[in-house]
Amino acid sequence: MPVHLLPPDPASLHPIAGLELGTARAQIRKPNRRDVLVVRLAEGATAAGAFTSNRFCAAPVHLCRRHLQASGGAIRALLVNTGCANAGTGEQGMRNAERSCAELATRLGIDATQVLPFSTGVILEHLPMDRLIAGLDPAIADAAGAHWAEAAEAIMTTDTVPKAASRRDTIAGKAVAVTGISKGAGMIRPNMATMLGFVATDATVPAALLARWVREAADASFNRITIDGDTSTNDSFVLIATGAGALVIESDTSPGATELKAMIVAVARDLAQAIVRDGEGATKFITITVETARDLAEAAAVAYAIAHSPLVKTAFFASDPNLGRILAAIGYAGIADLDVDRVDLFLDDVHVATAGGRHPAYREEDGARVMKQDEITVRVRLARGQAGTTVWTCDLSHDYVSINADYRS
Amino acid sequence: MPVHLLPPDPASLHPIAGLELGTARAQIRKPNRRDVLVVRLAEGATAAGAFTSNRFCAAPVHLCRRHLQASGGAIRALLVNTGCANAGTGEQGMRNAERSCAELATRLGIDATQVLPFSTGVILEHLPMDRLIAGLDPAIADAAGAHWAEAAEAIMTTDTVPKAASRRDTIAGKAVAVTGISKGAGMIRPNMATMLGFVATDATVPAALLARWVREAADASFNRITIDGDTSTNDSFVLIATGAGALVIESDTSPGATELKAMIVAVARDLAQAIVRDGEGATKFITITVETARDLAEAAAVAYAIAHSPLVKTAFFASDPNLGRILAAIGYAGIADLDVDRVDLFLDDVHVATAGGRHPAYREEDGARVMKQDEITVRVRLARGQAGTTVWTCDLSHDYVSINADYRS
Repeated sequence: MPVHLLPPDPASLHPIAGLELGTARAQIRKPNRRDVLVVRLAEGATAAGAFTSNRFCAAPVHLCRRHLQASGGAIRALLVNTGCANAGTGEQGMRNAERSCAELATRLGIDATQVLPFSTGVILEHLPMDRLIAGLDPAIADAAGAHWAEAAEAIMTTDTVPKAASRRDTIAGKAVAVTGISKGAGMIRPNMATMLGFVATDATVPAALLARWVREAADASFNRITIDGDTSTNDSFVLIATGAGALVIESDTSPGATELKAMIVAVARDLAQAIVRDGEGATKFITITVETARDLAEAAAVAYAIAHSPLVKTAFFASDPNLGRILAAIGYAGIADLDVDRVDLFLDDVHVATAGGRHPAYREEDGARVMKQDEITVRVRLARGQAGTTVWTCDLSHDYVSINADYRS
Repeated sequence: MPVHLLPPDPASLHPIAGLELGTARAQIRKPNRRDVLVVRLAEGATAAGAFTSNRFCAAPVHLCRRHLQASGGAIRALLVNTGCANAGTGEQGMRNAERSCAELATRLGIDATQVLPFSTGVILEHLPMDRLIAGLDPAIADAAGAHWAEAAEAIMTTDTVPKAASRRDTIAGKAVAVTGISKGAGMIRPNMATMLGFVATDATVPAALLARWVREAADASFNRITIDGDTSTNDSFVLIATGAGALVIESDTSPGATELKAMIVAVARDLAQAIVRDGEGATKFITITVETARDLAEAAAVAYAIAHSPLVKTAFFASDPNLGRILAAIGYAGIADLDVDRVDLFLDDVHVATAGGRHPAYREEDGARVMKQDEITVRVRLARGQAGTTVWTCDLSHDYVSINADYRS
């Protein structure tokens, strides 16, 4: 059961001028579901991407990097399939990814380097090329600006809810929209971006500026979530500016640049948090904030130690205020000179630990009250400096084990 | 269900001359179970310890370090309780640990600094001092050289099987015995040693030499196991040489030193592996060997990435040869310049992956055959150098979640 996450209302997803989405049921792995997505971009659109740091990254990830470079960001189409990750597939995997792009490019009258390919699903298996290619024509025929909800559905794997977010505003006197979709529920501890996030705006943004923004947006959203600590082979986050709208940004100092970037970050964060809310087996949405760390690295180390501890995660699942497990995770996070007598731990508004032990005013029933909620904030103060960070995660439940013991079989 | 692990046959546990063990049922947390252990050592015995690296380490861990230093290793007694970890307990926790040692020392006519205290159980709660102290006299009265099996039982928490190992041999013409006990099933990723391992020999070994051996033995045993990646606040591994037997070791080059150390490592490894076999919810015992790494650090990083991946662990539980998950873990282990085209992956005798993808001869049914076994070896060759390491772990099952969602509540 996803935590406070509903399927998107299609009417809330603002179309992005210069961008059309079409899906097909190509039987990539499962019968009768949308599993191929084609996104067409108008001439003049720019795109930038952030990709997984996994060394076993998938063939399409390699090809995305190459095509973004070759085209200078002048991308005209995205091709996405679910059901097969095309990762751990060696040379044959690269040939398949290249051929997918070429087949789509021919049909659209563009260059193959203007297509970005994405795959998600099972690792170590080859793409069923005949079925994938047979899906291209129906997906192209289906393309329309209003098809964001169907697109979100077409990229799901173990997701239980399609994920989309959208905002519209007037910036520097011009109307502008930002809409995006994402997927992911397991193998989620993005390290650059998550598999998969796509965010588009109708503003004009030069490719070089977009390339910086995509990293900043990833760092403020997808790079701060974790479900199981497993960094996927296919994580990809792509930011698109179609340029078909009214707002034109030339640099970071252009009127409206700050506001547009904030809109993009807000949509990316909604999409990233949606992935956690739909985490495999998730019953709770946990926000972990670490404050007064010496630097960002140690703040993140503590936040992820808590977020990845199976003992902490099962305690959340059980609503059990067994909060010593959080102290233990802080203690093994790798800060060699941590003075535990200066560490404070809060659960929402409840002061749990101080001076190396229980806070004198802490009562078990206060901890139990917060642990029963389905949204909980863990706040740790290290008293070492001024740095801090926030990470979003979920609990570890029986359903996580069931889903991952059953997936694929 | 523990994986190929039976309760020890008391007759197989060789007594160690100069060492007696006594237990009591002190109602520390649960009624009517052995939960206090006193180990008495003859005058002249030496002891050395390796302890958790967790910064939130428990009061008894602090006190062990202090007493080993103050006594120069001339330890005369160990005091162990289960049910309460005395961790995250601040100053009151230190006072309680000190008082426990003083009370036992008075009864035995020794100095308080000659007592090593150990606690295991729930974190963030105080020791019930009255009940603990009331358990001392019965435990002392119970002390005998033959009580190793009862001692193993008295230190269990979520363990389902008491853990003990013993060897006897003739070294340099002298009879020598090594016997030990351990406990632990969750919060297990020792980083120095595990909570708790005690190994004793009747040989004479100087305290300074023993202090080196305890680290070497920990590194070859307890420091190479993981269940859930959670490094405990209380991990302690203590090595004792009573000196009451025939073998006398003066230095690493003494006749029999190498053989005795090998015996100690063998017993420590049996005890460490027993912890994994009894890992919370474990249904499989997994050996992960990484070869041809550039250095030990990167070999360990890859081994632990595999051993800690919830996706890999649930695939083992499901007997599902979803082996791309292992490649993904290798890929995110943090080796920035890893050439995945040179990585080889074997599951027992089956060559699964090579050249960045499936091995041409790999057949799904071969992977499935190995995954169905309850003991599996994962072997990774990185083709980068000459270093290697082995880590032992278990799978992640529904029972792990049940045990940790229910423990304490």
